Amino acid sequence: MRAGKLTGMDRRRVIIEGVRPEVDGGRFPIKRVVGETVAVEADVFTDGHDEVSARLLWRHEKQRNWRTAVMEALGNDRWRASFGVDTLGSYRYTIEGWVDHFKTWRHDLEKRLAARQDVAVDLLIGAGWVAQAAERARGADAASLHGWAERLRAETVSQAERSTLALSEELTLLMARYPDLDHATRYAVELPATVDPVRARFSAWYELFPRSWGSEAGKHGTFRDLGERLPYIKELGFDTIYLPPIHPIGLTRRKGRNNAVTAAASDVGSPWGIGGAEGGHKAVHPELGSVEDFRMFVERAGAEGFDVAIDIAFQVAPDHPYVEESPEWFRQRPDGTVQYAENPPKKYQDIYPFDFETSQWRSLWRELESVFQFWVDQGVRTFRVDNPHTKPFGFWEWCIGRLKARHPELLFLAEAFTRPRRMYRLAKLGFSQSYTYFAWRNEKSELERYLTELTHSDVAEYFRPSFWPNTPDILTEYLQTGGRAAFMVRVALAGTLCSTYGIYGPAFELLEHEPREPGSEEYLHSEKYEVRSWDLERPDSLRGFIGRLNRIRRENPALHENRTLRFHFVDNPQLIAYSKASGTPDVRSLNPYGDVLLPPPLVPPPGSADNNVILTVVNLDPAHTQSGWIEVPLGTFGIDAARPFEVEDLLTGTRYPWRGAWNYVELNPRVSPAHVLRITQASISDAAED
Amino acid sequence: MRAGKLTGMDRRRVIIEGVRPEVDGGRFPIKRVVGETVAVEADVFTDGHDEVSARLLWRHEKQRNWRTAVMEALGNDRWRASFGVDTLGSYRYTIEGWVDHFKTWRHDLEKRLAARQDVAVDLLIGAGWVAQAAERARGADAASLHGWAERLRAETVSQAERSTLALSEELTLLMARYPDLDHATRYAVELPATVDPVRARFSAWYELFPRSWGSEAGKHGTFRDLGERLPYIKELGFDTIYLPPIHPIGLTRRKGRNNAVTAAASDVGSPWGIGGAEGGHKAVHPELGSVEDFRMFVERAGAEGFDVAIDIAFQVAPDHPYVEESPEWFRQRPDGTVQYAENPPKKYQDIYPFDFETSQWRSLWRELESVFQFWVDQGVRTFRVDNPHTKPFGFWEWCIGRLKARHPELLFLAEAFTRPRRMYRLAKLGFSQSYTYFAWRNEKSELERYLTELTHSDVAEYFRPSFWPNTPDILTEYLQTGGRAAFMVRVALAGTLCSTYGIYGPAFELLEHEPREPGSEEYLHSEKYEVRSWDLERPDSLRGFIGRLNRIRRENPALHENRTLRFHFVDNPQLIAYSKASGTPDVRSLNPYGDVLLPPPLVPPPGSADNNVILTVVNLDPAHTQSGWIEVPLGTFGIDAARPFEVEDLLTGTRYPWRGAWNYVELNPRVSPAHVLRITQASISDAAED
Repeated sequence: MRAGKLTGMDRRRVIIEGVRPEVDGGRFPIKRVVGETVAVEADVFTDGHDEVSARLLWRHEKQRNWRTAVMEALGNDRWRASFGVDTLGSYRYTIEGWVDHFKTWRHDLEKRLAARQDVAVDLLIGAGWVAQAAERARGADAASLHGWAERLRAETVSQAERSTLALSEELTLLMARYPDLDHATRYAVELPATVDPVRARFSAWYELFPRSWGSEAGKHGTFRDLGERLPYIKELGFDTIYLPPIHPIGLTRRKGRNNAVTAAASDVGSPWGIGGAEGGHKAVHPELGSVEDFRMFVERAGAEGFDVAIDIAFQVAPDHPYVEESPEWFRQRPDGTVQYAENPPKKYQDIYPFDFETSQWRSLWRELESVFQFWVDQGVRTFRVDNPHTKPFGFWEWCIGRLKARHPELLFLAEAFTRPRRMYRLAKLGFSQSYTYFAWRNEKSELERYLTELTHSDVAEYFRPSFWPNTPDILTEYLQTGGRAAFMVRVALAGTLCSTYGIYGPAFELLEHEPREPGSEEYLHSEKYEVRSWDLERPDSLRGFIGRLNRIRRENPALHENRTLRFHFVDNPQLIAYSKASGTPDVRSLNPYGDVLLPPPLVPPPGSADNNVILTVVNLDPAHTQSGWIEVPLGTFGIDAARPFEVEDLLTGTRYPWRGAWNYVELNPRVSPAHVLRITQASISDAAED
Repeated sequence: MRAGKLTGMDRRRVIIEGVRPEVDGGRFPIKRVVGETVAVEADVFTDGHDEVSARLLWRHEKQRNWRTAVMEALGNDRWRASFGVDTLGSYRYTIEGWVDHFKTWRHDLEKRLAARQDVAVDLLIGAGWVAQAAERARGADAASLHGWAERLRAETVSQAERSTLALSEELTLLMARYPDLDHATRYAVELPATVDPVRARFSAWYELFPRSWGSEAGKHGTFRDLGERLPYIKELGFDTIYLPPIHPIGLTRRKGRNNAVTAAASDVGSPWGIGGAEGGHKAVHPELGSVEDFRMFVERAGAEGFDVAIDIAFQVAPDHPYVEESPEWFRQRPDGTVQYAENPPKKYQDIYPFDFETSQWRSLWRELESVFQFWVDQGVRTFRVDNPHTKPFGFWEWCIGRLKARHPELLFLAEAFTRPRRMYRLAKLGFSQSYTYFAWRNEKSELERYLTELTHSDVAEYFRPSFWPNTPDILTEYLQTGGRAAFMVRVALAGTLCSTYGIYGPAFELLEHEPREPGSEEYLHSEKYEVRSWDLERPDSLRGFIGRLNRIRRENPALHENRTLRFHFVDNPQLIAYSKASGTPDVRSLNPYGDVLLPPPLVPPPGSADNNVILTVVNLDPAHTQSGWIEVPLGTFGIDAARPFEVEDLLTGTRYPWRGAWNYVELNPRVSPAHVLRITQASISDAAED
């Protein structure tokens, strides 16, 4: 119940509710990248017949003053305005609404005049509103408004003449500058928005084990060696090179090849078995080079346009210096040993997890934050975080929050393959990108359902998916059994469904598909436990296909974002079809009861410079040619149904003349299992006019 | 960003989110009635492999201590528990979750034993958890837990034996009594629930103008006269008698018959033109009787089982004492007159609205609250509030909040026929029931869509719909043109779709259908402006049909609530079919992303005393016989598909043997446009066994 005492708050007649976007009542920020707009909607209304006005307020955290934009009424009490974000870091936005007496009066006057009523008294009332605004105004505007008030009151002038003045645009604009905000309602929450670099939304990752990139087969690779191989990765078209942990690898209980419980003397161990005599999370594995070598590699890659991402895995090998220096960060077992990692009945005695319930949790948290800072100081801007869901959620919010406050350009990719709530929570807490279930979504219906959740529910406000067809831990059954076409299908899906994606190579482009044992998703001869040597020049390599795919991605802005994604009907369950369009993906109307009301994406007219519509069709069956009829939403794409239009397969360069909504597609997986079609109409009509 | 300082809060590893039911983050209460249960769901999870436990906490506002219930895991991090509400007033509920080390340990032990591992150290670890619980326990439990810890540690006893002890139910239950809540997470909000009398959910209203119920035709009726006619209303089966304003009616600018601008001397005026020399909102119109007569009528009706609702319309006639006593509550026009009601270009010079923006708003609010209190003191418990959407929302929250704090049994029906957001907001602020758009929803598809929003979205948590086929202001085109069958259709829909409904009579049962002019929804010779005399004995009266309908409603618990409503397929767009079932309507699973996941209603087995399934089929076409095949969801209703079952039309008493999912229905509107079918299977099988 409300308290009995009446305060000024109670005089606020305007209600603001149903604000979108908003994550958990403003507890967490929405995410955007530099250059995007934030379209904000809300229900704004009051009692009675009075009209309301509303405005959007926003500011960057470093700015003191709010900027404002007038909100536009969409009907049914829904209002909208947008703001652009051009600076990295944190923004706040909120909404103000007020009863607008002058606007009400002005509209009523129009109705009275239309009904030919006497408006003598009404003009006096209007003059009163203008005179009140004059009191709020200053300088010339104040004098001007006083003048307007006088003119509306001038009984020597006819009602008709004064009414014309009253309805003039000049007065309307002047009055709008001095609203009566005395009893305005400010939405109770200042909603946060995190603005990241563009690569948070659009990037293509290439994961590799540097030790396999030595100057000759079998020789342990170094950062210098890897620097020499950048042209290969450049040709593949990736922009982010992601390295598994680069730290010294423990010796005690080191795992051998194929995860053998005991390692041979020559075995190099797993990069995730972090820490040894040479150091821990702030050191570089000596065989890869020095910290200086690493810094030079980051610089050299940066000069070539690459971002280098490193893996941060908060766990230690028994040899890690932390074990001796800070035993209080680990749980002791009753027999005096240190608690190793377990997932009963499985035991991972080569790994010690941190005990986040330790009484010394504060020093632990601070040390772990300093690990990130150390690598930031070496030039790293992007971190892939290993198993973040096995560390407390509160730690990530604190740690990422502090790091991003100092370095808003940092990105964090959450490697959490766990239940949906936990994955979404990590994204809310600050992770910039997230791994997904994509690797295991093979059927058309499951892809459609999953992508709709990711791109057209509130999840899209805070969770940026990254699609990976494979990782060093994930060799899916589809890839194991589907042959070369299966690899093409999966990378084509990843790269066109999701603006951020990645592969683990060269295993991927070289079609590595043997599991360690039947039923396992582990690779046979996994690079996790040994140095591999890859024949990058193999003729069956997918390097050409992937290079084309990445070039198409770069050249077509439609593929730089996910919110315009929509699926189209094909009359064959093995064919999936979907489109993305450049435009204004943020303009979408959500009603406050949770439904997503999707307006068609606003596509610039075909032929205009901004128009970019990419329609992808993929044959999900890697074994057989599949064909079908696809329904093209002509209206949504702005295509004139009466005229032919052209689709060009950007993968092959082939052009097809299409006409009308229904068109035939046929995909032979042995040739190319996907069409990535750019739609144009103008070019055909131009040609027809010749 | 999070502040840098680390506090104990940061150690809380459990996350609680996605709590349902919850209205606007707990800003507004959910609504229930005495005897219902509140099923609460939430996502509760933590990092890593540890298991969590959760409990629901609740208390009545008058209780100091929380009561608790263990929450049950539904899978995928979703948890549920329920509590019953047996006391009027306000409840609070919230959720606690914690990392349950003993539960984790116990499950891990099971896995280790299954894998035949050595568990010597594990038993010592478990003994540690038990010993810690012993420290939290008191008295006998503490001693007992210490004993258990000792036994788990006893190395002289075999691991197998100690493991059996460790997994015993006795220890599990004992440990569950002493959870480690040191770092438990309490959900940030204590969510409110308003508990109303049962009639807030289930009631049947009859609106009448007492002045037309005089002892002889043409004579102004009194409360005494009305008291004599209670048997008629009783026979109709209504439980709430609702009276338009009962106050003195103003003379100045009084409206004449059919809303004529000038009244004849004999014209009685509109009851909504409140206030005159005889008094205002705390007085009774002298021709109806005295305040004492009114109080006696309320008592007499109460003795007959009726609740008497009165209309509170916060507006005044120019003669109302307030105008002279408190001119500051009204807006003055520049010409010195009082601002009358307007909806430009329409003017209502016989009505003055209150100026809620007056500087004397506090005294105005207090006076208006005192009007309700005055009538509460005369025995009124139910108020129909006229046009609440033309008074500030904040006023209603304050006013209803204060009144319900003193008198939690009060009900308020909002007469707001306005835009959806405003209607829903009034319900959130405290109105117990609300008028709806039902009167204008005629087509099957629009009825299905509207009812789904009202009963299966979050709206159902706070907005209780009341369905009215007519009101003194609303004579729909359907009723004007559809004949007697149209009235039967609309009252059957109202009474079976919605647990609370009402009619304005005797206009309704006597089929009054002439509009004041074509295209108008106003009645010709409206009782709003004149005394009518009704021939209640007319042979075409619907009194018998309505009486049967209300008896069916009373006798069938399925019709006492709305949340089990679901629509069924009929292959004829003129036939609408839907069912309600008694059971546990509150058990529904909502995922946090807004979808409603509807489990089938849990229906007690057919033939059991609690089983009550009502399937209604209505012919929406009042002019023609319509027939079709209806699909009966046998599984949902617990009907054995292999056996026949019986449906009994409770309106006619006819029984039909049905079998299988698809059954034929045919409705002749001249006979009866609706089936209200009770489904039973047991009776048929019993008969078959004879």
